[in-house]
Amino acid sequence: MTENCLFCGIVAGNIPSQQVAENERAIAFMDINPATRGHLLVIPRVHSTDLRESAPEDLTAATLLAQSLVSRVIERLDADGANLLSCIGADAWQSVFHTHLHVVPRYKDDPLQLPWHPAPGDLDAIAATAAELR
Amino acid sequence: MTENCLFCGIVAGNIPSQQVAENERAIAFMDINPATRGHLLVIPRVHSTDLRESAPEDLTAATLLAQSLVSRVIERLDADGANLLSCIGADAWQSVFHTHLHVVPRYKDDPLQLPWHPAPGDLDAIAATAAELR
Repeated sequence: MTENCLFCGIVAGNIPSQQVAENERAIAFMDINPATRGHLLVIPRVHSTDLRESAPEDLTAATLLAQSLVSRVIERLDADGANLLSCIGADAWQSVFHTHLHVVPRYKDDPLQLPWHPAPGDLDAIAATAAELR
Repeated sequence: MTENCLFCGIVAGNIPSQQVAENERAIAFMDINPATRGHLLVIPRVHSTDLRESAPEDLTAATLLAQSLVSRVIERLDADGANLLSCIGADAWQSVFHTHLHVVPRYKDDPLQLPWHPAPGDLDAIAATAAELR
């Protein structure tokens, strides 16, 4: 755990999150600034700044958790597809410096463009979506 | 191998590519419609339509190869970051239906937006960049 890291705080339970899935080395929780409905973040429990520094077993665990969640958002949220995205460096749109994989559900003709402009989502709606995904 | 799959043809060597790296289960080659200089595709050798269908050991091998290439593009091409992206489904911008991970080098203030508009790159320049990355 690294002091002052938002995602380490979520792993430790000191910062609230809507967690939806986990495995031994990774957790998945709702992005509170969702690009689309059901936007999830998957992170290794162990801190690393970006995926270059993530140990292979941690990155593997996060990837396989993300893989299962891609299927889950398509099945449970009736999404039409998904994007898996990781940003390495501020010049690549990274804003939280703890390795994370975005799982972004996609819906036919949704207007998503990247970079998206993060804006707070409705927390009740996010909690309801989290319940569908657990 | 699946008939009529472009990427299976590249794996088999029937379709030319600028390959830059490989491991037992995955290969990496230059995207000929690069979003930025050094844009790479990493694919499992075994066919699957998208990452939902990729066997865990194949997806893991592709992810770890992509991880090493993120570091390599930053070091060798003097990139300032990178994005790792996978598109699952046509509604998520997937256009070749063989699981692939994009490694997109990023450069400070580059104009990249997604979806990008694929356009053929200069093949000589792509070959030269491939040589830098091998």
